[in-house]
Amino acid sequence: MRPDLSAIPALDVNLATRAAVGDALTRTARMFGDRTAIVDAGRDLSYRELDEVSSALARALLGTGVARQQPVAMLMANSWQFVATYFACAKSALVALPVNIALAPDDIAWILRDAGATVVVADAAALPLLTDFLADAPEVTLVVVGAHGADASGGRTVVSWDDFTAEHAGGPVEVIVEDRDTVQCLYTSGTTSRPKGVLVSHVSVLIGGMTNALQIGHSWGADPSTLVNVLPLFHTTALNTLVLPVLFTGGTVVLFARFDPAAMLTAIEDHSATHLMLLPIMYRALLAARGAGLPSVRRAVYAMAPMPEDVLKLVDELFPNAAVILGSGQTEVVPATVLQWPEHQHTKANSWGPAVPTVETGIMDGSGALLPRGESGEIVYRGPHVASGYWNNPEANRVSFAHGWFHSGDIGHLDDEQVLWFTDRLKDIIKSGGENVSSVDVERVVTAAPGVAECSIVGVPDDRWGEAVCAVVVPADPDSAGDDFPARVIAHAKAHLAGFQVPKRVVVVTELPKTATGKTRKHALRAQLTE
Amino acid sequence: MRPDLSAIPALDVNLATRAAVGDALTRTARMFGDRTAIVDAGRDLSYRELDEVSSALARALLGTGVARQQPVAMLMANSWQFVATYFACAKSALVALPVNIALAPDDIAWILRDAGATVVVADAAALPLLTDFLADAPEVTLVVVGAHGADASGGRTVVSWDDFTAEHAGGPVEVIVEDRDTVQCLYTSGTTSRPKGVLVSHVSVLIGGMTNALQIGHSWGADPSTLVNVLPLFHTTALNTLVLPVLFTGGTVVLFARFDPAAMLTAIEDHSATHLMLLPIMYRALLAARGAGLPSVRRAVYAMAPMPEDVLKLVDELFPNAAVILGSGQTEVVPATVLQWPEHQHTKANSWGPAVPTVETGIMDGSGALLPRGESGEIVYRGPHVASGYWNNPEANRVSFAHGWFHSGDIGHLDDEQVLWFTDRLKDIIKSGGENVSSVDVERVVTAAPGVAECSIVGVPDDRWGEAVCAVVVPADPDSAGDDFPARVIAHAKAHLAGFQVPKRVVVVTELPKTATGKTRKHALRAQLTE
Repeated sequence: MRPDLSAIPALDVNLATRAAVGDALTRTARMFGDRTAIVDAGRDLSYRELDEVSSALARALLGTGVARQQPVAMLMANSWQFVATYFACAKSALVALPVNIALAPDDIAWILRDAGATVVVADAAALPLLTDFLADAPEVTLVVVGAHGADASGGRTVVSWDDFTAEHAGGPVEVIVEDRDTVQCLYTSGTTSRPKGVLVSHVSVLIGGMTNALQIGHSWGADPSTLVNVLPLFHTTALNTLVLPVLFTGGTVVLFARFDPAAMLTAIEDHSATHLMLLPIMYRALLAARGAGLPSVRRAVYAMAPMPEDVLKLVDELFPNAAVILGSGQTEVVPATVLQWPEHQHTKANSWGPAVPTVETGIMDGSGALLPRGESGEIVYRGPHVASGYWNNPEANRVSFAHGWFHSGDIGHLDDEQVLWFTDRLKDIIKSGGENVSSVDVERVVTAAPGVAECSIVGVPDDRWGEAVCAVVVPADPDSAGDDFPARVIAHAKAHLAGFQVPKRVVVVTELPKTATGKTRKHALRAQLTE
Repeated sequence: MRPDLSAIPALDVNLATRAAVGDALTRTARMFGDRTAIVDAGRDLSYRELDEVSSALARALLGTGVARQQPVAMLMANSWQFVATYFACAKSALVALPVNIALAPDDIAWILRDAGATVVVADAAALPLLTDFLADAPEVTLVVVGAHGADASGGRTVVSWDDFTAEHAGGPVEVIVEDRDTVQCLYTSGTTSRPKGVLVSHVSVLIGGMTNALQIGHSWGADPSTLVNVLPLFHTTALNTLVLPVLFTGGTVVLFARFDPAAMLTAIEDHSATHLMLLPIMYRALLAARGAGLPSVRRAVYAMAPMPEDVLKLVDELFPNAAVILGSGQTEVVPATVLQWPEHQHTKANSWGPAVPTVETGIMDGSGALLPRGESGEIVYRGPHVASGYWNNPEANRVSFAHGWFHSGDIGHLDDEQVLWFTDRLKDIIKSGGENVSSVDVERVVTAAPGVAECSIVGVPDDRWGEAVCAVVVPADPDSAGDDFPARVIAHAKAHLAGFQVPKRVVVVTELPKTATGKTRKHALRAQLTE
């Protein structure tokens, strides 16, 4: 049974019924026009202003002649212009392509070429990152935030944000946006290969956002949330888990472009912030700078790394009314996919928690069979949060969608309460003497050894063990570590681990090789150690 | 930018990424398998059981050879079998077609023929309603809840629910379900014309359900909601606003097939119910039967009619911890479209409240222009809650989707806080002496007049006024109303209304003509009064 709509203009049906991300902003603006949407370096932007400026930018983008569903590359730190550009793309059926500005210029050039970007919006400070790309891309439209008027930069004419968006004021942008049109493409940082562009649709961002809003405790009404956010918007965590759900429900986002503990504490207090999401290391820095407890915070979410027990206790003190919970996700499954429940925060603090209501989790063996609770295998997901697929990469898509589930590349298990426990990245599991060793488990123990600042555990080929467990360790104080430091690390490991898990070798270094997003390049470590 | 998925089976991509209503039940069942999903006449059905029985029924339905997206007619009172049948249709890409069992047999036959139903699931008690339809539909598969074995009924072989679903146990039902496939078709009760089949998609029910869950205060976690529901599931209010959001978030639904105040009060207490939605008249009956206050209830929602001030006060006493809020919607915009905020319950008790976050409301004039706040016009909606359209009715679709908004047929305005105030149905507005008179406003006053039980206000053609305001009144006690009853009604109206609103004529009757859903047939009244 389908309705006969043949006599109705397609745009009318689309506007009346679609699930589109740009409409979510328009709705909040109609509802809460005078409310503050964004606070950015002291500048307040109301919902009406954010809606209008993103519509103006959308019209300007469409005016460049860029085709529907083509990318708009964004090289931008956290700012209100970032948020406006994202919504401008959403409104005009273009694809927002935020790029990690911590990447090297050649990686950035590779991404922009892979995506086929013909429009770039960049902070003035990010222009040097674009030199490689722009050198042989004369046709690209370049809009620069922070530039003054039109300017010749490196032999190219650039247009300032202000000039670009001027004279494009007007009403709503009404173009056809299909539910499954791509709204964002974020490139994942590969540790072993070129980054992959993850294409995510409007309906995924909208359902993911509403689910996260429900789960993280945002409300639509007279009691809106206030989020203080410093995580970079070019990652899915900040964008899809934090900022969009708040804007979808009429809350306020206080943006920071860089981490400044004192300024953030002041902002939390001044704006009576209700929501935070930080890395554990950032919570530690906040605690060091803290004054009194901050009672307004209702959720203190953390991500990316386990929260040490001592930090958890201090966070509880600083935010006496907050549930402290871990959020987990990945670029391919609009996060948070998995969110700890407050009631598990002490009993299952090392778990990832249960999936959110619109995601299903499973554990799969190599043959595509789902495994019973308790058994270990690859973590797989299904549901409307799952990305549409990778850009320009049929092989990655084939692997990822096998057997009707998205394959995360993570190993873990589900317990009796359907709580997800992460073991390791599939490619980082070490097969040693017939046993599977989780590098994450060994890292947790070795990092807690006296005098250890940081460590990474990898497997290296070994005649006897197949792979030998190898610890690459950064001492807290390299000068006073002493010659017996490796032996002390191994002794600590023996006291806390099974024999097959204990590192066979300890290599002391002053720093670990990392990606721009802070992940250790284990592939590089393995290559060095194997040589 | 779209991914290249050409090498992947379409079913795999669909299963991994879709927004499908059946998957929502499967997710809650995986998560909370042992939790009680449905309590029905003392029978508890766990999430695992509900998921399994709906999958078995889905396989049985597919086994009849019914084609994808074809309807399964349901003539069922509230029961766990109703819920299972709905999800069976959702899982198998069929269309659930619940029919109002209060309708007359010829209306039911008209609906089933209009929809082209070839499969019918019916309560044994509803079989007499089907005689007309079945007489010339020998090919229809008839599954009967409450029958024992196969049986010959009116010369036709029927199969019992138990026999039909037996031997169909198994794992998940994996067929392609597209986001915009139709999941439900509810026929609206027309007061002037044949009912219209409203086609609603999976993505609408899912987004509407999650939004209602967020708004009505359901949570996904260790603190699930418990809903006690007596409203009929064949209406969108009970189905889409109440029952599905609870099941999407892992709560418990206690079902009643008929209103029994004492039994409902017991159920609220025994199950520590957190959520109720009743008609104001039902709250009045509950209050009459009440014992002590019931502290577990967090939301007492009402619908369909204004809540008299005295009842509101008593509801506050019976449910001391509940927000009492009005929910409004219509079959064409998966409700609740508009939900009062608790903070408006006293200051704006007569309003409909603001739209939920995934619906946008507007007020439109006859030319398709949106009107500013404060001005009165037709209430229009847009967003993913809006139905896909009417079945078999291109003309109704053309009218409904004009100018890119769904036209509700209701008149109202939005105030400064974007709160919606309903004036009247467009076709019930009376144009008298150059003024627009809201029949609803006049009804509110006349119903409050001493000795009046019920009334309906309609306009009848009049040489002087164009239309004259006419009150059709049911006295509380017809025997003692007296000859001056009409004059007293008019005197009361004059004391509370503007001159042009005061009824020119009062007609006393013993009952009002009504539709099966309890709406007054104003069209019939106007016809009678015009003769």
